[in-house]
Amino acid sequence: MQSLLQNEDTIIALATPQGVGAIGVIRLSGNDAIKLVNEVFKAKDLVQQESHTIHFGTIRDGDNILDEVLISLFIGPNSFTKENVVEISCHGSNFIIRQIIQLFIRKGARPAKPGEFTKRAFMNGQFDLAQAEAVADLINADSEAAHHAALNQMRGGFSGEIKNLREELIHFASMIELELDFGEEDVEFASRDDLKTLVNKLQIVINALIHSFDLGNVIKNGVPTVIAGKPNAGKSTLLNALLNEDKAIVSEIAGTTRDFIEDEIIIGGVSFRFIDTAGLRETTDTIEAIGVERTQAKMKQASLIIYLFDLELLDIVEMNKEINKLENAGVPFLKLGNKVDKVTESFVEGLQQQHPDMLFLSAKEPEQVELLKTRILELVNLDKFKRGDTVVTNIRHYDSLLQTKNSLQDVINGIDGEITNDFVAMDIRRALHYLGEITGEITSDDLLANIFGKFCIGK
Amino acid sequence: MQSLLQNEDTIIALATPQGVGAIGVIRLSGNDAIKLVNEVFKAKDLVQQESHTIHFGTIRDGDNILDEVLISLFIGPNSFTKENVVEISCHGSNFIIRQIIQLFIRKGARPAKPGEFTKRAFMNGQFDLAQAEAVADLINADSEAAHHAALNQMRGGFSGEIKNLREELIHFASMIELELDFGEEDVEFASRDDLKTLVNKLQIVINALIHSFDLGNVIKNGVPTVIAGKPNAGKSTLLNALLNEDKAIVSEIAGTTRDFIEDEIIIGGVSFRFIDTAGLRETTDTIEAIGVERTQAKMKQASLIIYLFDLELLDIVEMNKEINKLENAGVPFLKLGNKVDKVTESFVEGLQQQHPDMLFLSAKEPEQVELLKTRILELVNLDKFKRGDTVVTNIRHYDSLLQTKNSLQDVINGIDGEITNDFVAMDIRRALHYLGEITGEITSDDLLANIFGKFCIGK
Repeated sequence: MQSLLQNEDTIIALATPQGVGAIGVIRLSGNDAIKLVNEVFKAKDLVQQESHTIHFGTIRDGDNILDEVLISLFIGPNSFTKENVVEISCHGSNFIIRQIIQLFIRKGARPAKPGEFTKRAFMNGQFDLAQAEAVADLINADSEAAHHAALNQMRGGFSGEIKNLREELIHFASMIELELDFGEEDVEFASRDDLKTLVNKLQIVINALIHSFDLGNVIKNGVPTVIAGKPNAGKSTLLNALLNEDKAIVSEIAGTTRDFIEDEIIIGGVSFRFIDTAGLRETTDTIEAIGVERTQAKMKQASLIIYLFDLELLDIVEMNKEINKLENAGVPFLKLGNKVDKVTESFVEGLQQQHPDMLFLSAKEPEQVELLKTRILELVNLDKFKRGDTVVTNIRHYDSLLQTKNSLQDVINGIDGEITNDFVAMDIRRALHYLGEITGEITSDDLLANIFGKFCIGK
Repeated sequence: MQSLLQNEDTIIALATPQGVGAIGVIRLSGNDAIKLVNEVFKAKDLVQQESHTIHFGTIRDGDNILDEVLISLFIGPNSFTKENVVEISCHGSNFIIRQIIQLFIRKGARPAKPGEFTKRAFMNGQFDLAQAEAVADLINADSEAAHHAALNQMRGGFSGEIKNLREELIHFASMIELELDFGEEDVEFASRDDLKTLVNKLQIVINALIHSFDLGNVIKNGVPTVIAGKPNAGKSTLLNALLNEDKAIVSEIAGTTRDFIEDEIIIGGVSFRFIDTAGLRETTDTIEAIGVERTQAKMKQASLIIYLFDLELLDIVEMNKEINKLENAGVPFLKLGNKVDKVTESFVEGLQQQHPDMLFLSAKEPEQVELLKTRILELVNLDKFKRGDTVVTNIRHYDSLLQTKNSLQDVINGIDGEITNDFVAMDIRRALHYLGEITGEITSDDLLANIFGKFCIGK
């Protein structure tokens, strides 16, 4: 692991959320962390204590007691950052936290930048870049699927696969570079057929990872779901029922909903982002016309469309036309017959025979909405994720994988076109570079600043 | 220390604030705390570990890893609650925190009630009631003075004084009760003169504590400060300058400010609650008339009045009348000549000679407002607090002290009126009861529920 920075300074930040709570935890990391805390801690000599021990005492600023605290000691490299780390657990008052942090800044500690603790952990070889990024994902995960994907990545599942691919490629790259040393002699240490076989194998794995991003993106950010249908079909009522609260204004007057109100619910551990849309009728109202236009745009971005038909006012011919359009759109959709309580049973039976996959309900009945949730989950195929396969959730990784794929294609093209070894070696090196970016074997300061800048302070 | 409850169950709560942060700390307390955590912690056997040690590993719900965590062990009685305590430091995601807490609730832990950890610490003799209450004050303290008072109380400064008084009284009470045992024999183990001397001594201490509440209240809740003056004298501008932000709507139109906008600033470690008031002119506008009425009521509750005179439109005769009224009100006040930039220097000099304690400034100039802050701090005499004397900040303690004072007066009256020993003994017991309520030697379930119910959950 390269060490781009000399981390000789000691950094400090609040590690727990802002706000009033029972306790707050202030974290210091750096060579002098224990020494600095020891200077203001009255109880015992912290420098003499063992790693992973906790000590009760007071933090004093001169004669002034700031708080009674618990000090947790982590002696490097046996710590998160692999440096000396001290965690100060104090009373959860903003005033106290501010006083303590200011005291240490006066004593020479430096306020940590966002993600700087995790960055130091990465720089000191605690984990690779993909694992470091997973720490941030883990903190932000708000569904079981997102949590599972982040934890799996943090624990190295994803990194392992990437590393294996890289090692195989490095082997071939060095063979080909060895051939270059022999110049005109026309030796072949690396069989071109074996290389093509390997590259093909790599392509399959990388394509699978690239494809997993669709799923990964959905896991991380939620399934974008559009509720569509004609005005007054019950779209807002349905959204409210799903969200279990009044996020959208429900009105009997057709065309009330003009703005997109986004919200999400967790169904079966997966997050669904619901996008409420303006009615899909032809309209002369300008503001609403914009709403309809935007709805059609949204429908194209959706991963799932729930299309409502108002059974009470149903025009069968028009319904079939609309279903036709939906089928041509290529997005998974669910046909929903709403206001089932307003029509006869035989009418529903007739429709059900015609459309066996149509779901009938009244959006006003909570139990029926529960049934809808089950059906939604079936439509979004998340089986792959459940089998525990590696899933790419990070767009940076996705981009690197695409670049790797292109470089590998260049390798294949080069071998087939019988270009010279030096060009093939260059293409392999390029593929290695992009793979290395994912786990951080290849980094730049800009890349690191970009990644860790998105972390919260204290992490 | 009486034990009103059998705390055989293990309680759990998030100890850090809600919200996204680098870490969250979940706290468990109870006999089974370590055993419960050990059942789901994979790394080593926690039951075999020493107190005050930290252990890295994963929390698992069956085969499902919830998070990588640090476990801090505190083996009772060597813990905050004197029970077994485990702190789980996990990634600061609401999802993870919820999953972990739910796991332990399924395993038999109980969600902690507000203040229940501190209540257990009190019940198990970790500290007395006044100290427990100081924990909550400490968390809520937002100024140096309030922090200092709470920390002093938590560390037992206040409790010590109360306990000494109580012990002296107990001595006399038992002497007098001994006399009762001898019935008709007319012995006198306790000299009535000595008792009166002691009670007088106690009265002096208790009166001092009672009087300190004025200061204590101000320290804890801030100095209620009214900014008053005629319409358009610059009250809102001054408040804004003091607060450094636009909390009040400033307008050139006289009478704009009708509502009280409260906010506070910290000057020299003391919190001042500023109350903006409607103009003090005679008015025919009904809404504003209510504003003026409320202003006069507020002025009576204030501990400090900042009275603004508009130098530009100054009527000297009327000004002197207003100053006269302020002097009779009996509240410390500061005379402020505003808009000093709009009048001649000689005019200001003339006024200054007449009113040497008048401060001249332009509320629009930040540096001049800084000067005002210094003057405000001088006016509120907090010397007593700074000498480190005990200060009563809690209204419950204040009430108990008032009751103690009354009971002691009854003792004196009883001795002077030569009433029988049993009545004197009863009055002493009553005084002891009220003193005991402060530190918790005397408690009831209602009192405890009331006190700890105000704590945050997790404390």
